[in-house]
Amino acid sequence: MIQQLNRIIGTALEEDIHTGDITTLALQLGARRISGILKAKEEMTVCGVQVAERVLATVDKDLLFSPDCADGHTLPAGGIIARFSGDAQLLLQGERVALNLLQRMSGVATLTARYVSAVQGTKARIVDTRKTTPGLRVLEKYAVRVGGGSNHRTGLYDGVLIKENHIAAAGGITEAIRRTRSYIPHTLKIEIETESLAQVKEALAAGADIIMLDNMAIPLMQEAVELINGRALVEASGGVNLDTVRAIAETGVDIISVGALTHSAPAMDISMLLEAE
Amino acid sequence: MIQQLNRIIGTALEEDIHTGDITTLALQLGARRISGILKAKEEMTVCGVQVAERVLATVDKDLLFSPDCADGHTLPAGGIIARFSGDAQLLLQGERVALNLLQRMSGVATLTARYVSAVQGTKARIVDTRKTTPGLRVLEKYAVRVGGGSNHRTGLYDGVLIKENHIAAAGGITEAIRRTRSYIPHTLKIEIETESLAQVKEALAAGADIIMLDNMAIPLMQEAVELINGRALVEASGGVNLDTVRAIAETGVDIISVGALTHSAPAMDISMLLEAE
Amino acid sequence: MIQQLNRIIGTALEEDIHTGDITTLALQLGARRISGILKAKEEMTVCGVQVAERVLATVDKDLLFSPDCADGHTLPAGGIIARFSGDAQLLLQGERVALNLLQRMSGVATLTARYVSAVQGTKARIVDTRKTTPGLRVLEKYAVRVGGGSNHRTGLYDGVLIKENHIAAAGGITEAIRRTRSYIPHTLKIEIETESLAQVKEALAAGADIIMLDNMAIPLMQEAVELINGRALVEASGGVNLDTVRAIAETGVDIISVGALTHSAPAMDISMLLEAE
Amino acid sequence: MIQQLNRIIGTALEEDIHTGDITTLALQLGARRISGILKAKEEMTVCGVQVAERVLATVDKDLLFSPDCADGHTLPAGGIIARFSGDAQLLLQGERVALNLLQRMSGVATLTARYVSAVQGTKARIVDTRKTTPGLRVLEKYAVRVGGGSNHRTGLYDGVLIKENHIAAAGGITEAIRRTRSYIPHTLKIEIETESLAQVKEALAAGADIIMLDNMAIPLMQEAVELINGRALVEASGGVNLDTVRAIAETGVDIISVGALTHSAPAMDISMLLEAE
Amino acid sequence: MIQQLNRIIGTALEEDIHTGDITTLALQLGARRISGILKAKEEMTVCGVQVAERVLATVDKDLLFSPDCADGHTLPAGGIIARFSGDAQLLLQGERVALNLLQRMSGVATLTARYVSAVQGTKARIVDTRKTTPGLRVLEKYAVRVGGGSNHRTGLYDGVLIKENHIAAAGGITEAIRRTRSYIPHTLKIEIETESLAQVKEALAAGADIIMLDNMAIPLMQEAVELINGRALVEASGGVNLDTVRAIAETGVDIISVGALTHSAPAMDISMLLEAE
Amino acid sequence: MIQQLNRIIGTALEEDIHTGDITTLALQLGARRISGILKAKEEMTVCGVQVAERVLATVDKDLLFSPDCADGHTLPAGGIIARFSGDAQLLLQGERVALNLLQRMSGVATLTARYVSAVQGTKARIVDTRKTTPGLRVLEKYAVRVGGGSNHRTGLYDGVLIKENHIAAAGGITEAIRRTRSYIPHTLKIEIETESLAQVKEALAAGADIIMLDNMAIPLMQEAVELINGRALVEASGGVNLDTVRAIAETGVDIISVGALTHSAPAMDISMLLEAE
Repeated sequence: MIQQLNRIIGTALEEDIHTGDITTLALQLGARRISGILKAKEEMTVCGVQVAERVLATVDKDLLFSPDCADGHTLPAGGIIARFSGDAQLLLQGERVALNLLQRMSGVATLTARYVSAVQGTKARIVDTRKTTPGLRVLEKYAVRVGGGSNHRTGLYDGVLIKENHIAAAGGITEAIRRTRSYIPHTLKIEIETESLAQVKEALAAGADIIMLDNMAIPLMQEAVELINGRALVEASGGVNLDTVRAIAETGVDIISVGALTHSAPAMDISMLLEAE
Repeated sequence: MIQQLNRIIGTALEEDIHTGDITTLALQLGARRISGILKAKEEMTVCGVQVAERVLATVDKDLLFSPDCADGHTLPAGGIIARFSGDAQLLLQGERVALNLLQRMSGVATLTARYVSAVQGTKARIVDTRKTTPGLRVLEKYAVRVGGGSNHRTGLYDGVLIKENHIAAAGGITEAIRRTRSYIPHTLKIEIETESLAQVKEALAAGADIIMLDNMAIPLMQEAVELINGRALVEASGGVNLDTVRAIAETGVDIISVGALTHSAPAMDISMLLEAE
Repeated sequence: MIQQLNRIIGTALEEDIHTGDITTLALQLGARRISGILKAKEEMTVCGVQVAERVLATVDKDLLFSPDCADGHTLPAGGIIARFSGDAQLLLQGERVALNLLQRMSGVATLTARYVSAVQGTKARIVDTRKTTPGLRVLEKYAVRVGGGSNHRTGLYDGVLIKENHIAAAGGITEAIRRTRSYIPHTLKIEIETESLAQVKEALAAGADIIMLDNMAIPLMQEAVELINGRALVEASGGVNLDTVRAIAETGVDIISVGALTHSAPAMDISMLLEAE
Repeated sequence: MIQQLNRIIGTALEEDIHTGDITTLALQLGARRISGILKAKEEMTVCGVQVAERVLATVDKDLLFSPDCADGHTLPAGGIIARFSGDAQLLLQGERVALNLLQRMSGVATLTARYVSAVQGTKARIVDTRKTTPGLRVLEKYAVRVGGGSNHRTGLYDGVLIKENHIAAAGGITEAIRRTRSYIPHTLKIEIETESLAQVKEALAAGADIIMLDNMAIPLMQEAVELINGRALVEASGGVNLDTVRAIAETGVDIISVGALTHSAPAMDISMLLEAE
Repeated sequence: MIQQLNRIIGTALEEDIHTGDITTLALQLGARRISGILKAKEEMTVCGVQVAERVLATVDKDLLFSPDCADGHTLPAGGIIARFSGDAQLLLQGERVALNLLQRMSGVATLTARYVSAVQGTKARIVDTRKTTPGLRVLEKYAVRVGGGSNHRTGLYDGVLIKENHIAAAGGITEAIRRTRSYIPHTLKIEIETESLAQVKEALAAGADIIMLDNMAIPLMQEAVELINGRALVEASGGVNLDTVRAIAETGVDIISVGALTHSAPAMDISMLLEAE
Repeated sequence: MIQQLNRIIGTALEEDIHTGDITTLALQLGARRISGILKAKEEMTVCGVQVAERVLATVDKDLLFSPDCADGHTLPAGGIIARFSGDAQLLLQGERVALNLLQRMSGVATLTARYVSAVQGTKARIVDTRKTTPGLRVLEKYAVRVGGGSNHRTGLYDGVLIKENHIAAAGGITEAIRRTRSYIPHTLKIEIETESLAQVKEALAAGADIIMLDNMAIPLMQEAVELINGRALVEASGGVNLDTVRAIAETGVDIISVGALTHSAPAMDISMLLEAE
């Protein structure tokens, strides 16, 4: 994950600074020590403190950085996330990138925490999807965990999900599962998408490890859960939002996947306040 | 921009596919032609059609792709964005990345269009900020233009914005502008942040090209606009949302910068429907 | 996998050619069409035909290449793998890299096929390990599949294997499995290493999906298999060679992992014969 | 060579760890100091000690590492290569890559040492070829030197070797050498491949610096060496193995090139033993 | 700029050292401390001292480096630029790259200083162009500033220059400026190329911020400056050399752009003297 | 060399275009076919025609390009180098990079041709040095060959040059040559720097293949050549310019190395003329 993180930070700093911060260069201020804080301007589940530190330490090798809270902590509006000090010109160059990452990660963690809270008391896990921001998946999946959720597969390469199109092309659920079992590492489970009770039954009979109930109405979902009866993990998918998630969880599904966690979480409002020492 | 776009698409596909789409590999389906459509599931200003095409063409060299609308078009729910055909296995590998980019870009364009519409009839330009998704700035700034907005500087390297911290460090507005003028390429304007009428006056006297009114209340902003009276461009910044933007525009400012355009635009709902030929 | 393959081929060609093939440059021969064959000089399970083609096509865009056999085919000594034609100077530049990859991949596939053949009739799967050539894992794991084997996890990121050190640090098998289950994606199974029947029992009770029998003597392995009795997959590991693999398979284990498949497979002898057209 | 080494290690770690060591992450063990040894499990010429150290230091910045022997040392089975201590989780992440490189490099050095020993007392140098593992050439050529061998040219760019195909295309040995001499840097020698005494004579007359005797039978090789009589360096190539190498050396050739040194050296058996401090 | 600098130095060292400094490796000297100086062998405006330091520090982490003068200083022949000490073998590997950069940057700064001196007392700024060495633009533009000049736009992306071909394609100066104004960030000025007084007038009327007088004879240039009369910045371009630059400046233009600053500045003669400690 | 060329062109285009040619984007001209010529504005040895074509073809995949002369051709002022046609906007984006490379390479070739011409009739070869433009060495060394010169080693990795510092550290010429011979590939010669006849004698006795006469006065050089008398190649180095090179050549040295070929060749004046079709 270090290599991905370094790529993300390197790309983001290059994108913002490129040939140099022309304003700072023009002012020719010389080295000047400054201290600052990162401050939550609304209530949030904080996420990305070490990422923000790494951004600032990338631009200022002599950064001093002291977090006031760890990732996963819930801060009220006005709460302090971290305190730091360093060179004024360098910190001004890293400020925006640090905030852009911290605000986005805290946004994902905060929204996840709301979903997790909504299903409290049920056995359902809230999990993410592959609907992540291109290039930032590793950070967003981390933020989902920080918010109390769990991760679905990382990408196409580390998990099997047999969808409608695959089933049709392979000539049916049974054959699709058979081929997959004989091919994949024994360390992976097989998940398959179903849209009817008939499909659920066929998937169970074929030995699916995980059965996804795709866009099913609550009563049908309920029936499917009862039918499966613990013989496979059950994942609900589609049409999940904060209004519907509790009812879905109460059907007894094991997993609820929510695209919005990563594709539509608004950034949290966080500011960096600087003050000459 | 081609190099940035190739980097974004390459990173996103690697992130999702890495060592291979294990489900597709396991099913061993062989080449199979499929056709598909990209469909808007809610009303939106479409953005990213060529980006989506490029993603799919990256995974399937023999893709046929025919857009039904161009970037900037407003589609109703159910509207078709593009039609295409290609190899089933390859398109399934590119689907998620294509959608992730298209949904995000359309989200930014759609939100921008709402801001632009809110200030219609005034002379104010809606512009973006540097609060963009790390790694995707070039696409998000494009989406802002597609939505009818304009761009602020791309990064720290291609525009001057003298902020409060700079002013303090340089010893005042006049000195800051003097140093900057003597340093920067003659092709760039100087923008400076102000928080009071006194600062506005000093900036004007020092020859600022653009004066940013930072977090000013509407009446103060109004006064500042009248004071400046066309001798510099005026940019309003801070506290801008869809409820406040019209009143801000009516003060006569030239430019209104809005961070939310890029940091909090929810993804538009778009689906890819595939069907064997 | 395309991106990894392109990296491997690009690195290998750069490593060999760098600033240019000085012999060819010195001779200043001009374009000259040549045809050639790839020929097996000993019996082998061929693997890497498309990789070799891709190498040659990278140096000569106008390559014509026609395979005589597909990956997985068993060729006798003297058998022809492929025929091709192209520019003499360009093919001479790609020859060594194409052969280096083809010979190595065929070496892995051939050795794997011998192990697979040795356990024929039992239910045991031959699988690889992470003891691969640095930088070439994706090709070597492919070669194992071509030779009739199966893959273990690709790396540390896509499969769980709790080893002795992990168990000690976590405070025991039960606790290690509990923590892991609550963390990992629901799409992954949990494999745990055991060295005694007591550990096997604890792992079973804790719900391990896969139990690795590490360096156990055959009779102990037999006992473990009977104890597990289908409630988890069983993997034998350690001390596996062509002399011992059959006896191990006959204990009834599901999976036998063999490091030698990738770390010590000798290259197959393959030559490229060129002839002016 | 530092840049190549960093590329090799970076690629290998990314290949194995990618988005993270999921087992270690799941167990959430926190920092924990551990010490370990690298131990030879069979007799070998050790090679790659500093490379292994660099791998471990890449994952654990605070590694303490103390070699018990230098590259080139011959260790008996059970001999200790190095001792080290560091963070348990980090070292477990680097273990496999460190061993994969160390085992492979020691394999090449050990096999080379056997060839060198076989020709002891003759004047023949054992040299490698371009039949190296794609991406690892720089390490394998180093291992050949550590094993007491010498290097042939690194690639196509830093040495001239005129082969049969080149000669035919250039219109003969004399013309090929003439063209080459006028083109190449004066710092490089010219080597040419010959298959008969007639070719040897022509090469000598044309001023070849090095004459390769390609796949010649021993008596013919003997004759060629006598004919050349010190007027050029003589390299024997083709059909070299541990059974034939002594007889070849005794013909009086200066250099014997051996592909097997790098393409078929089995990995040495080395283990990393870890123990909580 | 750090990322560009690292790219330049990394590329240059790789280009020179690649698989290793074979002379140094062959001599097997072991660590040996040496001290050295960088010495100007002709009069020059020094530029690149920190770049040279960074090159040497890249090859020798324990370098001690102490500059005798800062960038922009004018040194006589024989003047000392810097003193340093470090490991002999490592410094010999970095010597050529350090000198190649330092000599080139000092060449650009020295030539710029001559142009700046030639226009002293006028208001004209000497600026560079995009006629820079591919890959080194950021360093050469820095050297121009060090020599007392100013920079034109960095590239096509951070400044607008509407040329003859653009005007023709857009249908005239007025339309070209109109379109550009509505598109570009408000932070950028518009520069347009003119070849006649008629064009100058149209450009002024259309609101051009900067008017380039392209290859105009001195009297025409004079007339244009008077016509513009401060309503736009005026840039002279074309046919500028040390013989003509003063007369051009005396027409009253604001800016004179000179391609030769970067495309034809001869390297300054600088040597590195080393001495064992 | 293709990979280096692609790196150079990619870097140069990214450096110039980055996020986009803002002038062209602003004008929104649409596709428009244009034709153009590359024209020599002074007499020159043309070099880089295919490089310029590759730059333009990189920005415009549909470029038509037809050279009027090959690299190495001497063109008078006004001579046409090539004709081409393509899309106006794309060609405008590639113009500067194509010219920057073509002008520089032609500058090196032209200056080399002058040196070669100055020594005509003698046996001396004009060769380059490692004093090349960082990042462009491969192109500049090619331009030296095009101008009729030859190349010295490419870098530290593919040739041996034992200098004063090496000799001192190794304990003398004899020992330095002995160590080197036993280490380096048999394909490389050994070159050693000498400053006196005594050193020349020792080098000869120790079996140096090439003896460099470093900064020797003409009479001393003459004596050295006679002393060596064909037993080693002789290279003159230091203090070479167009005024001195003939006298140096007439001493009978084999090779004269000239740093100025690459570090101080002024760019040739070449323009690109475009015209709408």
